[in-house]
Amino acid sequence: MPDAAVLLTEAAAQAELALDARLPPESADPARLHRAMRYAVFAGGKRLRPALVLLACRACGGRDAAAAAGLAAVEMLHTYTLVHDDLPAMDDDDLRRGRPTCHKAFDEATAILAGDALQTAAFGAAAELGAEAVAVLALASGSLGVVGGQQDDLDAEGKPVDAALLERIHRRKTAALIRASCELGAIAGAATPEQRKALAAYGEALGLAFQIADDVLDVTATAAALGKTPGKDAAQGKLTYVAVHGLDAARAEGARQARLAQDALVLFGAHGADLSELARFVVERRS
Amino acid sequence: MPDAAVLLTEAAAQAELALDARLPPESADPARLHRAMRYAVFAGGKRLRPALVLLACRACGGRDAAAAAGLAAVEMLHTYTLVHDDLPAMDDDDLRRGRPTCHKAFDEATAILAGDALQTAAFGAAAELGAEAVAVLALASGSLGVVGGQQDDLDAEGKPVDAALLERIHRRKTAALIRASCELGAIAGAATPEQRKALAAYGEALGLAFQIADDVLDVTATAAALGKTPGKDAAQGKLTYVAVHGLDAARAEGARQARLAQDALVLFGAHGADLSELARFVVERRS
Repeated sequence: MPDAAVLLTEAAAQAELALDARLPPESADPARLHRAMRYAVFAGGKRLRPALVLLACRACGGRDAAAAAGLAAVEMLHTYTLVHDDLPAMDDDDLRRGRPTCHKAFDEATAILAGDALQTAAFGAAAELGAEAVAVLALASGSLGVVGGQQDDLDAEGKPVDAALLERIHRRKTAALIRASCELGAIAGAATPEQRKALAAYGEALGLAFQIADDVLDVTATAAALGKTPGKDAAQGKLTYVAVHGLDAARAEGARQARLAQDALVLFGAHGADLSELARFVVERRS
Repeated sequence: MPDAAVLLTEAAAQAELALDARLPPESADPARLHRAMRYAVFAGGKRLRPALVLLACRACGGRDAAAAAGLAAVEMLHTYTLVHDDLPAMDDDDLRRGRPTCHKAFDEATAILAGDALQTAAFGAAAELGAEAVAVLALASGSLGVVGGQQDDLDAEGKPVDAALLERIHRRKTAALIRASCELGAIAGAATPEQRKALAAYGEALGLAFQIADDVLDVTATAAALGKTPGKDAAQGKLTYVAVHGLDAARAEGARQARLAQDALVLFGAHGADLSELARFVVERRS
C-alpha cells in the first residue's frame, strides 16, 4: 500500500539531485543571479510536479533515471512562475514557503532575471527528453497555458464572479503544467499512445482537484501550515472556487475531480496505485 | 554583389510570416496578453537575428522553409529580453524603436507576462528544429548567456570601468544570441561540423562587432535615427566599449571584429558573400 508522504519524499530527493545537477553553482558568475535562482528553487516545496513526472514514468515501466531531466524541467518551470507571480507588479507577495520571496531576499531586477533564467533552464532540461517534451512544456506554460492563466487571474481581480472564467483560469494556471508533468513522465517512460492519453486525463483532473484544494486551504488553513498568509486570495478579491461556489461545493468538486483522476488510471492496473494515492493526497492535504 | 538592406528586408519579410504563424491572434484569450506580445514583436526592428538564421541556413545549402521556425525563435527570444530589460526595475526605458515600451503601452504586469510568454513561444518554435536547437538556444540565453549578461550589466552600473567585465557582458548579453542564431541556421541547413563551427565563430565575432557599434551609436547617433534616447548609456553610468576604451578605439575594434567574422567564412567561398556583407553593414550602420 503506497503512502503519499513516502512517495513525495522519495521524488523530492530525486528532484533535488536533478535540479542541483542542472543549475550552475552559486559561485558561477553572475553569482548574485545564481544565488537567487537556487534560493527560489531550493525552498522546500512539495515537489508535486516532479513526483508526477517520476510516477508517470514508472507507471509506463520507465526507469527513474530516464525521468530525471523531466523532474528538473517542470520544477524549474513552476518555480519561475512563482518568482514572477510574487513580484510587486503582480500578486505583490512578501512570503513564500515561510521565507521572504525572491524579490524581497534579493531585489526586483534580480528576481525578474532569476525567473527568466529558470524558465530558460527548464527548457534546456526538457530538451534532454527530446523535442516533443519541449513542445508539450511550451504549450502548457505559454500564453495559452500558465502565463495566460496568470494574466486572466490578474484581470479578474475585483470583478464579478464568473464560473466559466474561473474554470479557464484553473485549467490554464494550474492544471496545464500538472498535466504536462504527467505527459513528460509518459514521454520519459516511452508510453504507448493509450498510456499517454490516460496520463494526460489523469493530470488534467488532478490539476483541477489540486487548485480547488488550494482555494479551500486559503480559507481554512493556518499561516504556519501554509507558509504564506491565508485569506489573501479573498482579501485581494481573487476569483476562487470557494468565492464562486462556496466551501461545501468546493470540497465536493475537489473530491470529484480526484476520483476522475483515479478513474483515468484503470488501464495501468496495479502500476497506477502510486498515482492514485497521490490523487487522494492532493485533496486531503492540510497545507 | 549582395546588398545588406535588400538581404535584411527579405529576411524581415520571412520573419514576419514566421512570427505571425506562431503567435496566437490578438483576439485569442487573454486578448490583452496577446495584444502585448504582438505589440512588442511587430515593432519594425532590424530583424538581424532572423536574417542570420536565414543566411546561415542558405550558406549551408538549406532551403528557406527549413529555417522558418528558427527565424521566429530567435526574434521572440530577443524581443522578450527587450521587454524585460525596459521594465522600471531594470533599465526603466519609456521608448523602444520610437514607440512607448511594452509596460508603458500596457502595464507592468502585462509586460512581464508578455515577455515570459514570448520566451516560452521561442522555445516552442525552436523545438520545431529539434532538441539540439533548443539546447543551443537555452545555453545562449540563460544565466550563463543573455540573462547573465543583463545581470552583470545592471550590477556594473556606476562602478569603475573594467575591461574584462565589459567583454564578458558583451559576449553574454549580445554575442551569445547572435552566435546561437547562426548555429540555428546551421542546424536548419544540415551543416557539416566544420560549417557549424565556422558559423559559430562568425556569429561570436559579429556579435561583438554589433555591440561595439551600438556603444558607438549611443554617443554619435541622433534620437530620430535610433528610435530611442541617445546618450542614455553614458547618463546611466553603463559600462560601454566607448566608456572603457574611447571612441576611436571602439571604432577600430568594431571593424576588427567584423573582419574576423568575415575571415571565419572562408570555407563557404561564394556562398558566404551574404553573411560577409551583413558583417560590413553591422559596423557601418547609422542606426
